[in-house]
Amino acid sequence: MGLSLPAGFTLDGTTIHHRIAALAAVSESPAPVVTRVLFSEADLAARRLVADWCREAGLSTRTDAAGNVFARWEGTEPDRPPVATGSHIDAIPNAGRFDGVVGVLGGLAAIEALRRAGFRPRRSLELIVFTAEEPTRFGLGCLGSRIMGGALEPAAADRLADGAGKTFFEWRSGAGCPGDLAGVPLEPGHYAAFVELHIEQGPILEREGLDIGVVEKIAAPAALRLRLTGEGGHAGAVLMQDRHDALLAGAEIALAVEQAARDSSSPDTVGTTGVFRIGPGAINSVPAWAELEIDLRDTDLPRREAARAQIERAVAEICGRRGVGFALETINADPPAICDPGLIAEIMSQMEEIRRNRRRRCSSRTMVSRAYHDTLFMARVCPVTMIFIPCRGGVSHRPDEYAAPEAIETGVTVLAASLAALASET
Amino acid sequence: MGLSLPAGFTLDGTTIHHRIAALAAVSESPAPVVTRVLFSEADLAARRLVADWCREAGLSTRTDAAGNVFARWEGTEPDRPPVATGSHIDAIPNAGRFDGVVGVLGGLAAIEALRRAGFRPRRSLELIVFTAEEPTRFGLGCLGSRIMGGALEPAAADRLADGAGKTFFEWRSGAGCPGDLAGVPLEPGHYAAFVELHIEQGPILEREGLDIGVVEKIAAPAALRLRLTGEGGHAGAVLMQDRHDALLAGAEIALAVEQAARDSSSPDTVGTTGVFRIGPGAINSVPAWAELEIDLRDTDLPRREAARAQIERAVAEICGRRGVGFALETINADPPAICDPGLIAEIMSQMEEIRRNRRRRCSSRTMVSRAYHDTLFMARVCPVTMIFIPCRGGVSHRPDEYAAPEAIETGVTVLAASLAALASET
Repeated sequence: MGLSLPAGFTLDGTTIHHRIAALAAVSESPAPVVTRVLFSEADLAARRLVADWCREAGLSTRTDAAGNVFARWEGTEPDRPPVATGSHIDAIPNAGRFDGVVGVLGGLAAIEALRRAGFRPRRSLELIVFTAEEPTRFGLGCLGSRIMGGALEPAAADRLADGAGKTFFEWRSGAGCPGDLAGVPLEPGHYAAFVELHIEQGPILEREGLDIGVVEKIAAPAALRLRLTGEGGHAGAVLMQDRHDALLAGAEIALAVEQAARDSSSPDTVGTTGVFRIGPGAINSVPAWAELEIDLRDTDLPRREAARAQIERAVAEICGRRGVGFALETINADPPAICDPGLIAEIMSQMEEIRRNRRRRCSSRTMVSRAYHDTLFMARVCPVTMIFIPCRGGVSHRPDEYAAPEAIETGVTVLAASLAALASET
Repeated sequence: MGLSLPAGFTLDGTTIHHRIAALAAVSESPAPVVTRVLFSEADLAARRLVADWCREAGLSTRTDAAGNVFARWEGTEPDRPPVATGSHIDAIPNAGRFDGVVGVLGGLAAIEALRRAGFRPRRSLELIVFTAEEPTRFGLGCLGSRIMGGALEPAAADRLADGAGKTFFEWRSGAGCPGDLAGVPLEPGHYAAFVELHIEQGPILEREGLDIGVVEKIAAPAALRLRLTGEGGHAGAVLMQDRHDALLAGAEIALAVEQAARDSSSPDTVGTTGVFRIGPGAINSVPAWAELEIDLRDTDLPRREAARAQIERAVAEICGRRGVGFALETINADPPAICDPGLIAEIMSQMEEIRRNRRRRCSSRTMVSRAYHDTLFMARVCPVTMIFIPCRGGVSHRPDEYAAPEAIETGVTVLAASLAALASET
């Protein structure tokens, strides 16, 4: 097939890194901490900034009713299904600057560099900025791609409410995205392919000294919410054998979540209790209630469901033994995605050409994504895969998240070559 | 000795219950929930109300620099050490109306009834309203009596700071209690005796169908604060074996606190993790830190200290195994108190006389107080004991805390007889 990068292709690394820094400054938290919760002032300002950059690059932009932004470079055969790339710019509280952003600004940089080099795509190329990959506002991740992929009914999406009872419909209307969500879901085949560039959010590439990971499978989470109702009372007066301590039931359950993940035959099974609140929360009061949110994920659905069943049995046993009431709710339980072997082969072949032409060092491997991405839902629309770059210590969702400039530039180069190859296909 | 109640003694139950209801309405929370944190607007208003009632009853009032209020009925031999009663009116968030209040308003009612019946005390009688029995504001319980009993240095007390960094000195100055705390500690022997009327805050009297418990020992808590520092990260990307999850370390420790109390040879050992906070607190983030506050109490000091050592060993073992850092701080560790056998005998004898004279049903037993009271620190000043009355289900520190009107009136009658007997002693 040969290298798809045009001869004059050069990346403008300076602009990429300046934009990443400029976007990081648009935050609800003081620098260097990044917090951009969906439709917050910071998120809206960041969306405007990115859309401006897209238009400056000569792309046309549109926003759907869910707030997903599409920036388009029209191909010479615009009736063919386009090739898409993209990611998200929302950020959980106390996050860093690279998660999602590298895929959005890297995708834009890839398109800009291809344009500068005189590349003419046959298929149109689209950069997508997905709404709310992070679950912060509504407790449900990948909101935009989930609706786009048909995994969440528009009416159900509009009814989602935040902690204060304000619905997604109200939030998106206030953010300038009114209209009917019915136009958001895409038909299967709408795109020819979707490739997402992302930091690994894990330690493997760094450990192995590799530049690129191409994703074969994406783990998917089951997210559970558990409310425990015990009995409060004075910490001195209620004897141990008379207690129904909601915290202690929750503590055993959090440990049971860990145990279920550890009992799995695969290290790809991970279980986390990331939210744990108790009340009344005074040193001299026996905890009367607890609220847990549990994230259980795997690349293999039956294995994840087996761990989930083990957790559910543990909840019933622990609460029964302790005389604590419980209500267990499934927030979401998405199936893992298998990436497209043809797409993976295409990207591997482009990397081979990049190395052969001595354009860049890009050692690589295939891997699984243990994190959750919009690509999971784009897999319901078209063939997908992801291009991972290393991040320091595998750290993500923290202010000290870091990807080296050269690592980002390698990722963008591989993405550009892949998009050029895919957009040239008949 | 005979019954010390004067012949014309009658309780004004209506006034007691009206005052309890009126005081409950002075709250930071909507009715029926009572919240009166030290020196809040509600606490200050409640203090004014109680002081007004004391003055209407003909008592003289003074407030010391720590905010402890003393209402005095001068005896015929005012140079003798007075006899004191009292309790507290501050209330933890989300509390009920009886804890502490029964001892203050019941003490006032006992004195008023004795005055109405023409009783003339030889020794002066004092009603004390202690500052901050509850630890809500400064994390340290029995603040007023602790300083009074010499268990907390005035300078250290003034340096105590709330969550926002505002000190006790600043709070008390703003609340109209300026001046030097050096005048607050009392010499041993300052009072002849101190007797506190209180709801049991436990289920024993109700279970056994008894009216009165006379306290032989008061359990005392060791209060510990534990900060755990693990490592955060993405809940999908960090494999189980690479985690240093602060929540899971905290969960094991909370269970170890329970185990240490259960391993004790006595049911009087109780251990509670009443505060448990984690962060960052997002469903898809591995918990990076946790903060626990642990309350461990017993009527026996060596037994409590053995449980505490067991907990400390568990903290070190769990954190070492999980690679989680910890800082363990002792907030306070007070010795339990032994009540005065002579005083207990005196109260028992007055109850015998009340029964013999068919004044009231008052079946009774001696018992231990597992809750923490100002009496614990008054034990450093003079002989002490407490008079307990049943409360429904043993429930306290909750809005549904309840003591029946007849139970309160029985308690006030026994207290009045006891105060009359003690104030008559030469």
